[in-house]
Amino acid sequence: MGGRINTIMQVCFFALAGVLPQDEAIQKIKSAIAKTYGKKGTDIVRKNLDAVDNTLANLHKVDINIQKLTSNSSLPTPNSTFIAAPEFVRDVLGKIMVWEGDNLPVSALPADGTFPTGTAKWEKRNVAAEIPVWDTDVCVQCSKCVILCPHAAIRSKIYHENELTNAPQNFKFTNVRDKDFTGQKFTIQVAPEDCTGCGICVDICPAKNKAEPQRKAINMELQLPLREQEKANWDFFLNLPIPDRTKLKLNQINQQQLQEPLFEFSGACAGCGETPYLKLLTQLFGDRSLIANATGCSSIYGGNLPTTPYTTNIDGRGPAWSNNLFEDNAEFGLGFRLSLDKHAEYATELLRELAKEEEYKNLANSILNTPQNSEADIWEQRERIALLKQTLENTETNPTSPIQNLKSLADYLVKKNVWIVGGDGWAYDIDFGGLDHVLTTGKNINVLVMDTEVYSNTGGQSSKATPKAAIAKFAASGKPSAKKDLGLIAMTYGNIYVASVAMGAKDEHTLKAFLEAEAYDGPSLIIAYSHCIAHGINMTTAMNHQKSLVESGRWLLYRYNPDLVKQGKNPLQIDMKQPKQSVENSMYQENRFKMLTKSQPELAKKLLDEVQNEVNTRWQMYEYLAARQVNP
Amino acid sequence: MGGRINTIMQVCFFALAGVLPQDEAIQKIKSAIAKTYGKKGTDIVRKNLDAVDNTLANLHKVDINIQKLTSNSSLPTPNSTFIAAPEFVRDVLGKIMVWEGDNLPVSALPADGTFPTGTAKWEKRNVAAEIPVWDTDVCVQCSKCVILCPHAAIRSKIYHENELTNAPQNFKFTNVRDKDFTGQKFTIQVAPEDCTGCGICVDICPAKNKAEPQRKAINMELQLPLREQEKANWDFFLNLPIPDRTKLKLNQINQQQLQEPLFEFSGACAGCGETPYLKLLTQLFGDRSLIANATGCSSIYGGNLPTTPYTTNIDGRGPAWSNNLFEDNAEFGLGFRLSLDKHAEYATELLRELAKEEEYKNLANSILNTPQNSEADIWEQRERIALLKQTLENTETNPTSPIQNLKSLADYLVKKNVWIVGGDGWAYDIDFGGLDHVLTTGKNINVLVMDTEVYSNTGGQSSKATPKAAIAKFAASGKPSAKKDLGLIAMTYGNIYVASVAMGAKDEHTLKAFLEAEAYDGPSLIIAYSHCIAHGINMTTAMNHQKSLVESGRWLLYRYNPDLVKQGKNPLQIDMKQPKQSVENSMYQENRFKMLTKSQPELAKKLLDEVQNEVNTRWQMYEYLAARQVNP
Repeated sequence: MGGRINTIMQVCFFALAGVLPQDEAIQKIKSAIAKTYGKKGTDIVRKNLDAVDNTLANLHKVDINIQKLTSNSSLPTPNSTFIAAPEFVRDVLGKIMVWEGDNLPVSALPADGTFPTGTAKWEKRNVAAEIPVWDTDVCVQCSKCVILCPHAAIRSKIYHENELTNAPQNFKFTNVRDKDFTGQKFTIQVAPEDCTGCGICVDICPAKNKAEPQRKAINMELQLPLREQEKANWDFFLNLPIPDRTKLKLNQINQQQLQEPLFEFSGACAGCGETPYLKLLTQLFGDRSLIANATGCSSIYGGNLPTTPYTTNIDGRGPAWSNNLFEDNAEFGLGFRLSLDKHAEYATELLRELAKEEEYKNLANSILNTPQNSEADIWEQRERIALLKQTLENTETNPTSPIQNLKSLADYLVKKNVWIVGGDGWAYDIDFGGLDHVLTTGKNINVLVMDTEVYSNTGGQSSKATPKAAIAKFAASGKPSAKKDLGLIAMTYGNIYVASVAMGAKDEHTLKAFLEAEAYDGPSLIIAYSHCIAHGINMTTAMNHQKSLVESGRWLLYRYNPDLVKQGKNPLQIDMKQPKQSVENSMYQENRFKMLTKSQPELAKKLLDEVQNEVNTRWQMYEYLAARQVNP
Repeated sequence: MGGRINTIMQVCFFALAGVLPQDEAIQKIKSAIAKTYGKKGTDIVRKNLDAVDNTLANLHKVDINIQKLTSNSSLPTPNSTFIAAPEFVRDVLGKIMVWEGDNLPVSALPADGTFPTGTAKWEKRNVAAEIPVWDTDVCVQCSKCVILCPHAAIRSKIYHENELTNAPQNFKFTNVRDKDFTGQKFTIQVAPEDCTGCGICVDICPAKNKAEPQRKAINMELQLPLREQEKANWDFFLNLPIPDRTKLKLNQINQQQLQEPLFEFSGACAGCGETPYLKLLTQLFGDRSLIANATGCSSIYGGNLPTTPYTTNIDGRGPAWSNNLFEDNAEFGLGFRLSLDKHAEYATELLRELAKEEEYKNLANSILNTPQNSEADIWEQRERIALLKQTLENTETNPTSPIQNLKSLADYLVKKNVWIVGGDGWAYDIDFGGLDHVLTTGKNINVLVMDTEVYSNTGGQSSKATPKAAIAKFAASGKPSAKKDLGLIAMTYGNIYVASVAMGAKDEHTLKAFLEAEAYDGPSLIIAYSHCIAHGINMTTAMNHQKSLVESGRWLLYRYNPDLVKQGKNPLQIDMKQPKQSVENSMYQENRFKMLTKSQPELAKKLLDEVQNEVNTRWQMYEYLAARQVNP
């Protein structure tokens, strides 16, 4: 039954309320269970029926003396909880968080709808019964738990030993294994109040404890006894220095994961398959990203009142984010790009003018002509822009001169990137025409499709990304048609970077695709498999299940890089081995497919055969395309 | 200058009006010509400058004695012109045609917007200065002139000699060459008042007159001296019997073109590249088609007031046609299909009920179980339905019985087809998302994209179908990106029939594609190259120019038939030889490309090289895909 209590509470109600004779009520509940869950299989039905019987068996009266309350805890108040928070969090968001939002005057809310970012960290939800605990001795320091945590609640840091002087007594650390950091210390730290307890980190941990084989380098333990201690550890951890981004080897997950996430503690479901991709995006590029977010799960957990999971780094830089409706989010994001480019163009024009003056010549030309291809380049350009702005501020210029505009426009001379993100309902269906149009503009935009293969947020309707044979709303007998091949469609254009990734199956491949997509000077499309509660799966093991998805060929890992053509190479690279696992084995680990074997077994068999055939055909086709000789 | 008179009339006005000194005015006109037409090349400029000089040299006074009018002709009146027409044509449309529409009361117009079809034939426009004249001795009876005529103004018939008894004196005929009709007579007849004089028929005629090599089996001659004689011939021709459709070999153009067009005399431009496709559609399937027409040229000439070119056959059967806006015409057409299917489903249900009665058993089962795969099958099914309706009419049934509904629903038991048609602006751009969605439903619909590679009707804006390097609105420096490969995108689904055709390049291939698309029990997409005045071409030679388009590889001819996979065959068949002609030679026959060589020669060269490279790459890709081994 997991965390589900509806059946239990229903039994309690009817057992006590007396609206029906108890036997009759219970009989009706049992019939309803058989009817409601029948399609989901006998196992689910049995668990619910057992829950009814066990509820009745364990229902007992609890005497409470309301004259003698013994608890010391009280509801949080904005003043106590948000004492260290910014004013707006304390006075406005904090009130909403403690259910006092109705008392806020309209005047307290931002007139233009702009909300500060970085506020999710103030909303300590404490939803996890158990949280992961790190075992320093077993850990191989791969940082898989860090990259795959959907809530950015596990982080790693590398630092000098002398930073530990004031460490809390229980703060854990060990020697770094990575030779690039020899002599330094390494810590994996959990945010105890922000963790949702999904358990993915434990499931995907590759390090086994040799002494106790069922234990790993990270293990779940009750949160409550650990809460205060880990709060202190977390606060200490946050204040440890942040590594120099310009020195990290970004193609190594253990080093890349030292980058600060600028997306944390979202309200997504525990174990969400989408959020690790967004977190990675913000780690890599978040200090210079504009994100256009289509309506869907990601727009809800990305900007739900009262708090915002997008945040800023110590310099105050973080993603600018906005939600837009389903039907034209790609166009909305294209507008970001056009606007950035136009501002940069005007700033360049003004700077060229300024470069004619001897005083500015060197600085201006250096800003105009230095490439911005790496983190280090961008860091240096920011320094130059700061110097330019300071110089302009300190110099008397004619107040009517257009050069005045350069003060506000100079920041546009630092490279920024645009990410257009959303789910499959957005990309495959509702804005597909717009997405296609935007991808064909040739503009330097990056599109991230978090493909849950179903309209997740609106309640599980079938999209064109839904695979054949999966049950969804509007596809009650299993979707009769095959999943649309969005990547192959995008590849027909030839000048679009396309990647199909699944972080749970191969995280280093996902990382590579994000780096290449951003570096490609044109439109990029990343289609990212995102498991979802709508699939009827165990969310704890969902990341590992992505492996079976790829091994059965149901999801392909590939990258299509148009730049390779110039080198005489085939732009399409398949980044996986030939599928060996049967589709049947992989599919029927998901209840969205398994349900059909109960309700319509013959149809299920027919569709399964078709799916296996289509998976084989698709693999052959991709293999054939990837094997093609290409002339430059 | 062709039919253009603007420069000439402008010179006349300024020479006579005296608003400026004549020399100054003429000088300004000449400067304006150089500026306006400079981009179109020196040839166009020179022709206009010559026109100015020749106008001045030939401007002379014409004395008119308005007291002595000598002409006998008068403006037509509805009563005289439409004497044989249906009442609505005579009383309503006819008044609009003779400029008396303002006098019509609102009550005269159809309240629901439904207009009768088959009315274009009453609007005798007489726009051609010259019309084609058939030479019986030279003709090889291929019927290319019939299939390629954009206005259905040339037709062929085969009939028994004894039909000629009352033929007008000048009516032409000869012996049939086709052995299937040995002993019968053959006529090619022109509709003199409906022909637009485009000259395509002469240009594409493959038969040369050996005595006079510049003449062919069809030649242009002045219309006026021929008008009355050919009117009489046309009327006689129309009354000759129509061949038995069920006996024709539809894969032979000469026989297929004996099918009556149910789309005739539209208001499209003379030499239009789109209308021959629509005409063919109506010949093959028009008696059982529902057409959803996206806004664009085809919606304007397809249903412009006062008349409608869609018409009916002698049984009153013809296409049901409606225009829908750009943004959801595919969905609109899908609605036709769903509605047909639902009506047929209910009719089937009722008929199954009826089949339980002994009296109806045989007829009902025969209707329910006989396949409808050929013209003959459909003809027989119509006979059965007529019998059913008659029997139902003659039998007393309970007036509240659902069987009563069968009377109105029975016709849905005859197979009908849905055509969703429009231009590239609709299919590649504005409704691309909807088209994609409709194609993926798996429903039996047929989509015809008449690809002019530009928004023709709205004034020449660039669409995603516009080829690289072509000048169009919003692409004033030549379109920088390549043409979208709509066919390849559709092929990624695997279960969509796709054909890319160009009637002027290979008419028998177009015919084959239409037959296969309609026969395919699923979604079909035909992308049909349609030359257009917006291309800056000579419309008379435009059909032959399509050959150069294909020979240079700028347009591919292929068919992708998913049914072939079941036979273990590759579904993709390329229906042309490897391109041999250079793109340069083909492109620069069109002013849309040539203009750029004048305005930006370096850019033109760069884009030309890119296009040639892309054409080569695309050909290699298609060749590679078509060569692939496919496992069933």
